[in-house]
Amino acid sequence: MRIAILNCNTTESMTVAMTRVAGQIARPGTEVIPVTPAWGVASAEGFYDSFVAAAAGLHALDAIADTIDGVVLAGFGEHGREGARQRLACPVVDITEAAAMFACLLGLRFGVVTTAHTAVDPIRHSLVNLGLYERCSGIRATGIPVLDLAQDQVRTLDVVAEASRQLLAEGADVIVLGCAGLAGSRSLLSRRIGAPVVDGVSAALTMCEDLVHHRFTTSKVGAYAWSSGRRTSVRWPAGVGVSTGGGR
Amino acid sequence: MRIAILNCNTTESMTVAMTRVAGQIARPGTEVIPVTPAWGVASAEGFYDSFVAAAAGLHALDAIADTIDGVVLAGFGEHGREGARQRLACPVVDITEAAAMFACLLGLRFGVVTTAHTAVDPIRHSLVNLGLYERCSGIRATGIPVLDLAQDQVRTLDVVAEASRQLLAEGADVIVLGCAGLAGSRSLLSRRIGAPVVDGVSAALTMCEDLVHHRFTTSKVGAYAWSSGRRTSVRWPAGVGVSTGGGR
Amino acid sequence: MRIAILNCNTTESMTVAMTRVAGQIARPGTEVIPVTPAWGVASAEGFYDSFVAAAAGLHALDAIADTIDGVVLAGFGEHGREGARQRLACPVVDITEAAAMFACLLGLRFGVVTTAHTAVDPIRHSLVNLGLYERCSGIRATGIPVLDLAQDQVRTLDVVAEASRQLLAEGADVIVLGCAGLAGSRSLLSRRIGAPVVDGVSAALTMCEDLVHHRFTTSKVGAYAWSSGRRTSVRWPAGVGVSTGGGR
Amino acid sequence: MRIAILNCNTTESMTVAMTRVAGQIARPGTEVIPVTPAWGVASAEGFYDSFVAAAAGLHALDAIADTIDGVVLAGFGEHGREGARQRLACPVVDITEAAAMFACLLGLRFGVVTTAHTAVDPIRHSLVNLGLYERCSGIRATGIPVLDLAQDQVRTLDVVAEASRQLLAEGADVIVLGCAGLAGSRSLLSRRIGAPVVDGVSAALTMCEDLVHHRFTTSKVGAYAWSSGRRTSVRWPAGVGVSTGGGR
Amino acid sequence: MRIAILNCNTTESMTVAMTRVAGQIARPGTEVIPVTPAWGVASAEGFYDSFVAAAAGLHALDAIADTIDGVVLAGFGEHGREGARQRLACPVVDITEAAAMFACLLGLRFGVVTTAHTAVDPIRHSLVNLGLYERCSGIRATGIPVLDLAQDQVRTLDVVAEASRQLLAEGADVIVLGCAGLAGSRSLLSRRIGAPVVDGVSAALTMCEDLVHHRFTTSKVGAYAWSSGRRTSVRWPAGVGVSTGGGR
Amino acid sequence: MRIAILNCNTTESMTVAMTRVAGQIARPGTEVIPVTPAWGVASAEGFYDSFVAAAAGLHALDAIADTIDGVVLAGFGEHGREGARQRLACPVVDITEAAAMFACLLGLRFGVVTTAHTAVDPIRHSLVNLGLYERCSGIRATGIPVLDLAQDQVRTLDVVAEASRQLLAEGADVIVLGCAGLAGSRSLLSRRIGAPVVDGVSAALTMCEDLVHHRFTTSKVGAYAWSSGRRTSVRWPAGVGVSTGGGR
Repeated sequence: MRIAILNCNTTESMTVAMTRVAGQIARPGTEVIPVTPAWGVASAEGFYDSFVAAAAGLHALDAIADTIDGVVLAGFGEHGREGARQRLACPVVDITEAAAMFACLLGLRFGVVTTAHTAVDPIRHSLVNLGLYERCSGIRATGIPVLDLAQDQVRTLDVVAEASRQLLAEGADVIVLGCAGLAGSRSLLSRRIGAPVVDGVSAALTMCEDLVHHRFTTSKVGAYAWSSGRRTSVRWPAGVGVSTGGGR
Repeated sequence: MRIAILNCNTTESMTVAMTRVAGQIARPGTEVIPVTPAWGVASAEGFYDSFVAAAAGLHALDAIADTIDGVVLAGFGEHGREGARQRLACPVVDITEAAAMFACLLGLRFGVVTTAHTAVDPIRHSLVNLGLYERCSGIRATGIPVLDLAQDQVRTLDVVAEASRQLLAEGADVIVLGCAGLAGSRSLLSRRIGAPVVDGVSAALTMCEDLVHHRFTTSKVGAYAWSSGRRTSVRWPAGVGVSTGGGR
Repeated sequence: MRIAILNCNTTESMTVAMTRVAGQIARPGTEVIPVTPAWGVASAEGFYDSFVAAAAGLHALDAIADTIDGVVLAGFGEHGREGARQRLACPVVDITEAAAMFACLLGLRFGVVTTAHTAVDPIRHSLVNLGLYERCSGIRATGIPVLDLAQDQVRTLDVVAEASRQLLAEGADVIVLGCAGLAGSRSLLSRRIGAPVVDGVSAALTMCEDLVHHRFTTSKVGAYAWSSGRRTSVRWPAGVGVSTGGGR
Repeated sequence: MRIAILNCNTTESMTVAMTRVAGQIARPGTEVIPVTPAWGVASAEGFYDSFVAAAAGLHALDAIADTIDGVVLAGFGEHGREGARQRLACPVVDITEAAAMFACLLGLRFGVVTTAHTAVDPIRHSLVNLGLYERCSGIRATGIPVLDLAQDQVRTLDVVAEASRQLLAEGADVIVLGCAGLAGSRSLLSRRIGAPVVDGVSAALTMCEDLVHHRFTTSKVGAYAWSSGRRTSVRWPAGVGVSTGGGR
Repeated sequence: MRIAILNCNTTESMTVAMTRVAGQIARPGTEVIPVTPAWGVASAEGFYDSFVAAAAGLHALDAIADTIDGVVLAGFGEHGREGARQRLACPVVDITEAAAMFACLLGLRFGVVTTAHTAVDPIRHSLVNLGLYERCSGIRATGIPVLDLAQDQVRTLDVVAEASRQLLAEGADVIVLGCAGLAGSRSLLSRRIGAPVVDGVSAALTMCEDLVHHRFTTSKVGAYAWSSGRRTSVRWPAGVGVSTGGGR
Repeated sequence: MRIAILNCNTTESMTVAMTRVAGQIARPGTEVIPVTPAWGVASAEGFYDSFVAAAAGLHALDAIADTIDGVVLAGFGEHGREGARQRLACPVVDITEAAAMFACLLGLRFGVVTTAHTAVDPIRHSLVNLGLYERCSGIRATGIPVLDLAQDQVRTLDVVAEASRQLLAEGADVIVLGCAGLAGSRSLLSRRIGAPVVDGVSAALTMCEDLVHHRFTTSKVGAYAWSSGRRTSVRWPAGVGVSTGGGR
């Protein structure tokens, strides 16, 4: 099966990194297709970025819609999830919900570690709209900008571990990595803090594979149906293409 | 003062109509500036449309940001509100919240009449994220597509009045018009059903004037601050302009 | 238009002060009518006071009901709001809800600074009943009794600023002044703490003007209708008059 | 022990009736003291009535405060409960909460049958503020005015039984009589509908006896403390006395 | 009347102690019947224990079902309450709900002091399922294991008093003893901390007596009816008896 | 990997059936281990059954704990989940949560079709405790007892399809089969009603495989830790064994 990993931002090195994480956990026979939006934001760190990224991501789906079996939305707490589900028939899994669901299976409450302080509220809105916020004991920002996460990986891990320990002390049983850019550090962090750590990219890839394996498609009888049977006619900006191979 | 009315869709006749409604209630000295996005959807009737419209609207704000004193987001239940507040310092009022607030001052519970069935859930999400959903007794879709509202105004009013009466019977004290395209029918409908009817476009224009009058600006200390002090660098699609005079 | 400012307590100097605040923001053509209840409490600082004040305020409305176009209920977190709406047809705006609504337009979450510790829970109940508590990040009492607020204005501002800073640190984007007696300090405080500060008296006057401007009246089809069409026959205590000019 | 039954309205025949109901369930050694407010409303059937009744009831407590061991607030869904708790040290039990608590011990969800349609929302607010609304499956008004309940008791029982059956069909396991004027019909109704029926007057008397038996007094460390240690100085209207023997 | 006190664990000395507490508050004519399950856990300190204890307790009810007028479930926060209500017609009162209800009559918010940290979440689930969690300001564990509570009573009281003071400082008006093993310390603790302290065992005994006095039986029309009219046929493990006299 | 399917009841034919369903979706290399409790209820159709089944299921885990890599709890809406997670280190997935999670990925709201009317409230409690109830639009009972489901499969499917259509009409996008005994009818039903149908047994098997594949174990730092480091010492009833091969 072919599962697209749609990065929420335009930074191809991040698409590459998250594709690698997804590839490591993918089952035999799964092809991971990296997708980087052709326009949008270099990193999504708040409401404004998130709304721009949502449309850029939906735009990117146009070019690949007919060639994939499932989509992973790889932007933690970012908007657009319900739009992608309305646009496509194949399964769409957001890393926010996949991570929260895995965490709920491993502990009673989960805490989220994210990057910028302005990313906290979009994450909270996303969890509230998912109906999964009740099991969230807290969301902590490290203050490290998304694009700096990879610069000093030792320091990043230290700061994330410290935030994780505070979340555990405040009642979390499980830590969720609240940024696709942190995906690679799951095992290391888990050993450091002595508690399960969930990375949304690998969780979402796995759940997307699950839905395809079960031959599920998105429901088209309610919120994700097309209004009046029609397919929305979008006028996208001119001269914009989609990069489907960006992350290789 | 100069208040922009940002239509959420690209249909200029709707921008014209809502600008007329806003102009009728505007105070002396208020200039209503119609804004139609240069790209996006002809009408927003569900999650997909709404996320596309959000980014198109944020894009349209770039061209006018420095020339206005306030913005009315004229898409009922549409996304983007928190992004516009982060982008701008001047007051931003969404017709969804303004209508709900006016309704809460006039009755204990309000019901919403909207267009397509797929528009119901985005409206619900918007009210939940606003924290105003608790006072909402129900949202009913008429099934009339947005772009057909103006075709047979007698029938539209009949259908909207019938949905309103059902909402009143189910516990609403006040009716909220859940689509900017219904703005003009407020007085007529109110007389028909014997209860207050709130139109978000005029409510939002008035509340936006209020905030400017009180010299308020959007808070920049929390969720609407820029991450790390920086201004997000968006790469918008090439060759796209903004129409600020579209609705005249 | 004639808007009554109904002080919740019997202290006329406070009626004078809040009338002055309202007068400064009122539009041309608005006459602000001060109303002080003829009986009740010198200051309302908890549940007991609040219930006494509610009836005294409703009593005071009898004498002015036919002469006004709207009412501002000037007691932060005090009871009686729904009773006044049932009693009158003209718009009634409570400073609690007006302040919360303005705050919700300027930030994602607001914090409330109030006076006595026993005032916190009535405010919380009021916001819960309004359905606006979800956007409230906290309510802090300064411990300064209502009637001492004006004694040492420098110290009052210091204490209120300190409480505001704590609320901002705990997640508030906007500060709401949780006592009509603090109304005058809005601009000074806002400059001190670098965030928007909302005063309910001026917010409510403006929203009351708005509703009159839009020709709205309170809904009489549901919770605010008279039972069985009858008007309640109240036996008020003998020998009690109403002061409508008390605040001048 | 001496337990006051404070009628929320000024109709002495109702005080007599509810005192009789309370007397039948009272334990040996309990003296039931009927109290009718000296002013207020003949019956409380909505928000306005409820706020007037709350203050009239608090006023009536002044004359008896030092002579009683506990108070039953006999107005279903009426305001004032938290004020009476702040005013007194002895236990105060509201028939709304006592009925809801008994009902929660007998079934998973309870339904409330009340009188006027305008009484529904004050009851809902009361249950929400008590934190007991979650177990309430519905509140139905019969449309019979409070003062007409006793006129045709056969018809009243028929109408109440019909409303009760609808509540059971919609998910209630237990019926709560939502008006002190219905207190006498508990057993008859229970036999008719085949489900437990709870009357707040007898439930509250019993729970008030319980608290006195356990030597409990109301907490004075938080919401029910006096602000700054002071006792509120209320200026009640002149020439008003209190009838403590009204219901005999 | 005969009220069974069903200890949730198999430690007979605890059954003895809670029977003594219940006996001290019981009315004349009430016979308190101690019941210790024949199998189960020595103390219940978390989810696992709680689910084992629930079935062991239900098993113990078989032997006494026809000989009692009411049951007190003496395990704070333990499971099984709804099962006992379905099994029996006579009133069943859980010490968790009785304590919470008494506390709600004495203050606006209550805090719970319990034993092991792993007992906190079962208590929270129990209060949530009761719909009484909203009035709970916090649950604190002392870390003292249930079976050690009686070893050094001076130290136990010190530790419980300290936890209670923290709960009061964080907003509780009333303290609830969150373990049947703490039942005896109510008066002493209340004097130490200057606030009401509620013990569930005595509260539940009293409320159970109340329901019997009012001739209430558990509703059999909804959640506690037997499915399809049948009585569940349980295959209990072989060779297991029930001790009904264990606590004497 | 070895995944145990723990039937919540003692009816081996149901264990056989659900093992077959699980086996059909299992990945290569997964061994499905059927487990039938040695005691308990023939079918679980309400609170009483559910609490008995929970302990019987926990008892059954003792014999297999060291030989398995994961457990599926195959009782829809039944108790015991949190206890099994505390008892074991390997992943435990309840069919209730797995079904709800899959459903949340495929639609905005799911409806549940179950058997007996008394099974509805345990399901609701389970979803509330999971924090997943918000996305549930309704739970409908067909009235068919669990053990009759297989008797007339044509009629069962008809009745379940009718209940499903009502749930769709009331707002569900996806149907969840609320009984392990319905697991086999997923595909047939989905085709009949034109919407996704989720069966918890296969969903839970897949998610359990996922967690093992990701090398996750249950968090032992919070709610699922052992109190004071100790392992609870349970006294199970004498003479009771565990059948691990019952379902073959």
